[in-house]
Amino acid sequence: MNQLDSSPRAPYAGTNHPAHTGLGKSPLLHAAASLPSFEQQLQEFIRQPSVSSDPACRRDLRGCARWLASHLREIGIASTKVVETGGHPAVVGRIDVDPRRPTLLIYGHYDVQPVKPESEWRYPPFSGRIADGYIFGRGAADDKGQLFAHVKALESWIKTKGSPPCNVRILFEGEEEIGSPHLRDLLSKRRSDFVADGAVVSDTQMRGPGQPALTVGLRGKLAFDLILEGPRKDLHSGSFGGAIRNPLEALCELVTGFYNADGSLAIEGIYDDVAIRSSSSRRRLLLMAPSARELYEAAGVASGWGENGYSAYERVSTRPSLSVNGITGGHQGPGTKAIIPSRAVARLSFRLVPNQDPSRVADLLRRHIASRVPLDRGGQYPAFSATGLRCQIKFRESARPVKLDSNSPVISSAAEALRQTFKREPALLPSGGSIPIVETLQSMFGLQTALMGFALPTDGLHAPNEHFELKRFALAIEASIRMMDLFSKGGKRW
Amino acid sequence: MNQLDSSPRAPYAGTNHPAHTGLGKSPLLHAAASLPSFEQQLQEFIRQPSVSSDPACRRDLRGCARWLASHLREIGIASTKVVETGGHPAVVGRIDVDPRRPTLLIYGHYDVQPVKPESEWRYPPFSGRIADGYIFGRGAADDKGQLFAHVKALESWIKTKGSPPCNVRILFEGEEEIGSPHLRDLLSKRRSDFVADGAVVSDTQMRGPGQPALTVGLRGKLAFDLILEGPRKDLHSGSFGGAIRNPLEALCELVTGFYNADGSLAIEGIYDDVAIRSSSSRRRLLLMAPSARELYEAAGVASGWGENGYSAYERVSTRPSLSVNGITGGHQGPGTKAIIPSRAVARLSFRLVPNQDPSRVADLLRRHIASRVPLDRGGQYPAFSATGLRCQIKFRESARPVKLDSNSPVISSAAEALRQTFKREPALLPSGGSIPIVETLQSMFGLQTALMGFALPTDGLHAPNEHFELKRFALAIEASIRMMDLFSKGGKRW
Repeated sequence: MNQLDSSPRAPYAGTNHPAHTGLGKSPLLHAAASLPSFEQQLQEFIRQPSVSSDPACRRDLRGCARWLASHLREIGIASTKVVETGGHPAVVGRIDVDPRRPTLLIYGHYDVQPVKPESEWRYPPFSGRIADGYIFGRGAADDKGQLFAHVKALESWIKTKGSPPCNVRILFEGEEEIGSPHLRDLLSKRRSDFVADGAVVSDTQMRGPGQPALTVGLRGKLAFDLILEGPRKDLHSGSFGGAIRNPLEALCELVTGFYNADGSLAIEGIYDDVAIRSSSSRRRLLLMAPSARELYEAAGVASGWGENGYSAYERVSTRPSLSVNGITGGHQGPGTKAIIPSRAVARLSFRLVPNQDPSRVADLLRRHIASRVPLDRGGQYPAFSATGLRCQIKFRESARPVKLDSNSPVISSAAEALRQTFKREPALLPSGGSIPIVETLQSMFGLQTALMGFALPTDGLHAPNEHFELKRFALAIEASIRMMDLFSKGGKRW
Repeated sequence: MNQLDSSPRAPYAGTNHPAHTGLGKSPLLHAAASLPSFEQQLQEFIRQPSVSSDPACRRDLRGCARWLASHLREIGIASTKVVETGGHPAVVGRIDVDPRRPTLLIYGHYDVQPVKPESEWRYPPFSGRIADGYIFGRGAADDKGQLFAHVKALESWIKTKGSPPCNVRILFEGEEEIGSPHLRDLLSKRRSDFVADGAVVSDTQMRGPGQPALTVGLRGKLAFDLILEGPRKDLHSGSFGGAIRNPLEALCELVTGFYNADGSLAIEGIYDDVAIRSSSSRRRLLLMAPSARELYEAAGVASGWGENGYSAYERVSTRPSLSVNGITGGHQGPGTKAIIPSRAVARLSFRLVPNQDPSRVADLLRRHIASRVPLDRGGQYPAFSATGLRCQIKFRESARPVKLDSNSPVISSAAEALRQTFKREPALLPSGGSIPIVETLQSMFGLQTALMGFALPTDGLHAPNEHFELKRFALAIEASIRMMDLFSKGGKRW
């Protein structure tokens, strides 16, 4: 039996429990009864191809923002607006209940990752197909499904109580998957729209099926392209193979040089700023975190590989990493083509941990590469270097790593909401991903963020066949409803 | 004044010169007068998009073969047929003049390389656009323009003398750029169509502008794809980066492991069978061959790179090489995508020199790779190896290296024809490229081949903006006319 269902037979009678705090009709019961229509609305949301990194989707992003804003107005959040950012617009809204109550900022992102390779999708990536208790589609879990759970929680409060129990600020952005380039600017320009006492973001993962988790740390990020240029045009590899530096071969050598034999990073100084964790905190992490086997199973590999002396989970959460996300160069089509390509491009991204600074890491990277191949820095180097190659580093998005305070009201409210919803102690874990907003809220507003995630590593985030379990969608709505209630009471009512 | 122009004031009166061997009307004058229409016909030939490696061009290849065959019939070679091979068809024809005269086999290929990236072409790649004395288009030089020079030489003989001075066998294939997979089969099935005393192939390069060359050696070839598979699907690099083997990173490491620091090959045993050249032959090559500077200029790079202890030209002709022709893996589209890709593919090709054997090199490669990453050989290995990776080598075309006899009648006829046409001593050079037919003719028929090339390294072979100089087209026709005459007289009439 749910705690917010106003049942006269509530099992928590006599406790501080929200079931006894005077709610009339039950937001939880409303949510449970409305699930079929909530799911249909989520389908509609997923059907908007809001791939923020794809210039061809620019209008679809805008369309998706408009759809979301109008949906929020429909459920009763009249103030909702589509707000220009200079890039893809954001959706901003607010509900003022009582200035004496705490204010919760709900953040989510309506933009999604690209879908390629489309051929590997069982259902069209923007179909929102429901099958076997799951909803399929790009964004189903990351982050449309999770964002929408908070929307439906708000709706359940509004429809049953007239309003949520706390003041609410809404910020749904459209550029998270491209590093939130305009977010800081938006937050500082519209500061008053986002003043709050705590933030909740559902864009992370659970500890495992049925095992809730709160993310209390995030890795930072530094993405960059490495571009190597050699001959002015592709050359015949028969006529020139053996005497000309091949940009693809040089790129492979550069990439290989980033790593030591165990997979740790060979860039000088890269570990200098990495926070040393106490052996007790490492032990705690080992107990709470997924085991290596769980991690590899989620990845679909039989075994792992990485920095010596650290557990698999540490390697993806408290240790920095550098991943090659893509390489393109030379012949790509069918058959063979005997060429030395004129150019090769690798796309890479660091994941950074406290207390690494993206700009310092960029410097270390520059230095590392410059010692191997002359860098092209604003014409400082000749068009072709001594080895006949030219190298360019193009930095893309970056984010600082984050460490959160698990005792803060918003995080403890979220922890309790998860406890009540899943009947299980949530795991408090650092995560390997990066969510720029969290660091921004912390550094700009001093806000703590409850990273209350409902995705599973098997949901296909950033991969083909992304999906979200409808049961988890329902639980996420339930947890959000509870969390708002707990947070409204100061976050420490139990 | 040309030697075959029947002029009463021929300057070679009293010599053995062909001008005095009874030619009536002059093939050379006919050719000179017909150049404008010859060029138009070459345009038509180039306009057929005969990309043999592209399955989408299958019908275009057939169309191109039909066009060529009907053109040969039009100029008087009635026997010409389009012959099925199991792949793209060949064009086969013959002219029997007199069984006591020598028979010349003319080989060329009407198929061409792919055109990507099309955006880099000044004119559409299949336009055959004529501008500034050049004809532009894929195949302009490799090999349609050069093949067509022999066709026009035959036409000039037929139109003026009724027939060429020697018996002729014609073989124009449509699969050279994909390694001539059906050529051996065609030659052995139709052996009698190709019995000859010598072969001429114009699919090589000149020593430089105005400097004729005969290629007296060819590197062999062994092309292969290297496929590395890791996780079953792309993974989020935040969630897994640092703990999972990334196939792209492993691919880079494998590729890097193929080379020593100087660019020489690090594959054990790879140099075992490489013929050691005498210091006198190395000196001769150094004198005749393009200098490093010339080579780098042709490549469009300021400097080179390669095996220590060898000249730039040796590195591309008498030493083996291994080129990465292309790499694809992970994110390819616009923007960033934070993934660990599930798979990475590299396309590579060896160039081999006497006395390397492609199948032995394949063994050495297999052994080299198997010592680094478990190979997937018919299920012999588990789906995922200890490092979480699976590796596959897919061998593609191969060709043995060739060394030719420069004293053979057909090569000395070609040398003299070049001397007369260009008024300059031809350079006799080994080349870095691979032309499978040459080794096949040598091993199957004991035939020597005159590799009388008219392309220049700057013609953009296998690259965007391929072109052929119309003046060189005319000189190629002239040289072919002379060569047939010289060869008909035993190849040693001067």
